[in-house]
Amino acid sequence: MTLSRRLTAEALGTAILLAVVVGSGIMAERLSGGNVAVALLANTIATGAGLVALILMFGTISGAHFNPAVTLSEAWQRNVPAAEVLPYIVVQIIGAFAGVAAAHGMFGEPLFFASEHVRSGPAQWWSEFVATFGLIGVIIGCSRSRPSITPFAVAAYITAAYWFTSSTSFANPAVTLARAASNTFAGIRPVDAPGFIVAQLAGMAAATTLFCWLYPAPPADATVGGTVAPGDFADSLEKP
Amino acid sequence: MTLSRRLTAEALGTAILLAVVVGSGIMAERLSGGNVAVALLANTIATGAGLVALILMFGTISGAHFNPAVTLSEAWQRNVPAAEVLPYIVVQIIGAFAGVAAAHGMFGEPLFFASEHVRSGPAQWWSEFVATFGLIGVIIGCSRSRPSITPFAVAAYITAAYWFTSSTSFANPAVTLARAASNTFAGIRPVDAPGFIVAQLAGMAAATTLFCWLYPAPPADATVGGTVAPGDFADSLEKP
Amino acid sequence: MTLSRRLTAEALGTAILLAVVVGSGIMAERLSGGNVAVALLANTIATGAGLVALILMFGTISGAHFNPAVTLSEAWQRNVPAAEVLPYIVVQIIGAFAGVAAAHGMFGEPLFFASEHVRSGPAQWWSEFVATFGLIGVIIGCSRSRPSITPFAVAAYITAAYWFTSSTSFANPAVTLARAASNTFAGIRPVDAPGFIVAQLAGMAAATTLFCWLYPAPPADATVGGTVAPGDFADSLEKP
Amino acid sequence: MTLSRRLTAEALGTAILLAVVVGSGIMAERLSGGNVAVALLANTIATGAGLVALILMFGTISGAHFNPAVTLSEAWQRNVPAAEVLPYIVVQIIGAFAGVAAAHGMFGEPLFFASEHVRSGPAQWWSEFVATFGLIGVIIGCSRSRPSITPFAVAAYITAAYWFTSSTSFANPAVTLARAASNTFAGIRPVDAPGFIVAQLAGMAAATTLFCWLYPAPPADATVGGTVAPGDFADSLEKP
Repeated sequence: MTLSRRLTAEALGTAILLAVVVGSGIMAERLSGGNVAVALLANTIATGAGLVALILMFGTISGAHFNPAVTLSEAWQRNVPAAEVLPYIVVQIIGAFAGVAAAHGMFGEPLFFASEHVRSGPAQWWSEFVATFGLIGVIIGCSRSRPSITPFAVAAYITAAYWFTSSTSFANPAVTLARAASNTFAGIRPVDAPGFIVAQLAGMAAATTLFCWLYPAPPADATVGGTVAPGDFADSLEKP
Repeated sequence: MTLSRRLTAEALGTAILLAVVVGSGIMAERLSGGNVAVALLANTIATGAGLVALILMFGTISGAHFNPAVTLSEAWQRNVPAAEVLPYIVVQIIGAFAGVAAAHGMFGEPLFFASEHVRSGPAQWWSEFVATFGLIGVIIGCSRSRPSITPFAVAAYITAAYWFTSSTSFANPAVTLARAASNTFAGIRPVDAPGFIVAQLAGMAAATTLFCWLYPAPPADATVGGTVAPGDFADSLEKP
Repeated sequence: MTLSRRLTAEALGTAILLAVVVGSGIMAERLSGGNVAVALLANTIATGAGLVALILMFGTISGAHFNPAVTLSEAWQRNVPAAEVLPYIVVQIIGAFAGVAAAHGMFGEPLFFASEHVRSGPAQWWSEFVATFGLIGVIIGCSRSRPSITPFAVAAYITAAYWFTSSTSFANPAVTLARAASNTFAGIRPVDAPGFIVAQLAGMAAATTLFCWLYPAPPADATVGGTVAPGDFADSLEKP
Repeated sequence: MTLSRRLTAEALGTAILLAVVVGSGIMAERLSGGNVAVALLANTIATGAGLVALILMFGTISGAHFNPAVTLSEAWQRNVPAAEVLPYIVVQIIGAFAGVAAAHGMFGEPLFFASEHVRSGPAQWWSEFVATFGLIGVIIGCSRSRPSITPFAVAAYITAAYWFTSSTSFANPAVTLARAASNTFAGIRPVDAPGFIVAQLAGMAAATTLFCWLYPAPPADATVGGTVAPGDFADSLEKP
């Protein structure tokens, strides 16, 4: 795949992901009549299902990272060339903000407005560390043992992580930045974003270190001439 | 597959799809005691699960479009002969109305009665554009890279789209027309249907253009003598 | 597989299925505080998930019918020898009642007590016709085109059918009889059972006729020497 | 895989499993405003989805038992060497307590505090017997017929079992011990733990006996030189 196609896929995929997260949060909060558990359940199911579709539809093009932490971890493992890390991250962030604006447009909200949702403190930072640690672990573990199933494993993991962390598991620096521009159910105060991102990167580093020991890298020739693109952790079910 | 079998599959599949959407909406509204979030959650889960079953059971016959926007996009990509577009769309619409009547019969409602549910305005039209854009993107992306998984990707996408769009994602002109004949949870005023359909077709055109660039068409001989029927975006898991 | 193993699988599978349906209904009603939509949603998710597990764990032994209507349809298609129809149905019914008793034991209820839940009238009979028609259609369609995926398609279909029919989709004569012995959420008055069963058998007959035309039978040698047992509509993903 | 990697996988996997179960229980109870059905539904969906991810990410390393009852059943079937049973169980228990502490840290609770949640009596013991019987049955049935699908079958089974048993289906001695150290939604009084564990082991023994008869063991050479590790009941989809 050409780099232009891959960057388009990352931008578009991250945009739709944010549209799903923020849009379903708005819908859920409006309809739930104040029952936050029901609202978060709807937000969770929409996000998990959306991730299945998005990773399946974009995975074979760009690897379907949609997440700077994933791109950094893949580059660390030499699955993504160092020269492509910055372009990947830039388009992910641009896509994320575009997706927030798209969602706001669908619900008649301003394109961007800073969140007032407080998300801070050690419990939430620890939550983001754990959430990102687990996400990177799922990706490394599955992509090194059964890559065709990774899209389902990632979506299932995030579905669980919305509930087992007190932060509802952002686990993604681009998502964190863009959600700071949405004063809705899914928002986070801009001032709280850096703490989340630091915790996410620490969780990414810990998971990459541990899981690369746990799953030794496949032999180099496993991808030579193969059909798996670099960084593709969402390979198709029907390919060997 | 003969054309008669394929048209039967499209009519029957679209009928059951509408029975699922409208019937589960009626059940959800009756039981939910006014909690619209719970009602929409039940409607969503029923629709997503129903789509999995329907695309799997009819996909290898007709491609399991159940949707004029999908048929038009497939014809644009020359996966469906031009001469079959009109028959496909006609039986989809007939099936859709039959499904609404079947659902009404299951809940003791009149066979048809015009909806009074207002669904209009730029936010909802933009929602339908986005919803259909994403649906066509999922279908093109998956059918060109891992077709056996498309049924799950489409169902997951619609599950998410019920929540991340303010229109609850009709994304289907035949469904839109038929839901205008149901004054229930899933209905739409007849006068609002044209706006939805225009937005859906625009989203279809944008997605077909973009995703055909993103995913270059497979080589022509990929389907020569193969087991994949034209327009089949729901190929089976066990076929290579 | 020997007949004794197959009958054990049918009895045990049907027993666990009834334990899931009745047990989750009791739990859901007790916890839901009168919100029937939430109770039915929990009942639905438990049943759908339970069916996935049960068909996967017993499918390669007995075909995982758990349902006299399925056994009759399979015998009609000559996938089950005529001599085995009665034994299959007898153990399904015995298993169904054992499962109801097991569930009652788990919740401290009497082993059996007749239901007072009224389920009758044309709308509900039409619902049972439609529900069983669709179930048999899913089974024939998937087992003739992509058998490894049938367990998921059947479970997804039932998940939808709990909501899009006014009867909550029994679609199974053995289940209907056994639920008459449970005066709980999932029950049905004994006097209402015959109407349901007649509608189910009519739906089965209509679907078997239509779908056998829609999907011509595979050539006879497709199963000669193969790994697919007669009546196995739940073949494994990893087998070709 | 080396034993150190396998024990790390068991410890880490069990830890994340407990973090999911306990953490999502805390979140669900806090948000649900007293509606226990909604809380248990969220707890269920998080646990089921988490299990999918965990078994997929660790299955090819250690078999993804996370459960002394599973390890004992696998050793009984000679899939795990006798000398490894104790190390497996020890790290499972250590991991389970670590996961509870991790969850408590994410929600600002004490690291450990004894549960006051009464779970006792014949109905709940019978529930734990049935729950573990079914779990072991799912694992043996799927791992002997279609191992690549086992992760989904196990997760689906537990999703159902949260609802169809009055105990919410612990079905795991390590999980039972660790949940005794959490005075939250998912807790169990320490004094009630032994009764649960006895019932679980009885259910394990009954299921191992019955299902080993139902599914004759595969021929010895089926794993000689193959890609399936001993005890691996979560083999990948893409492997033959």
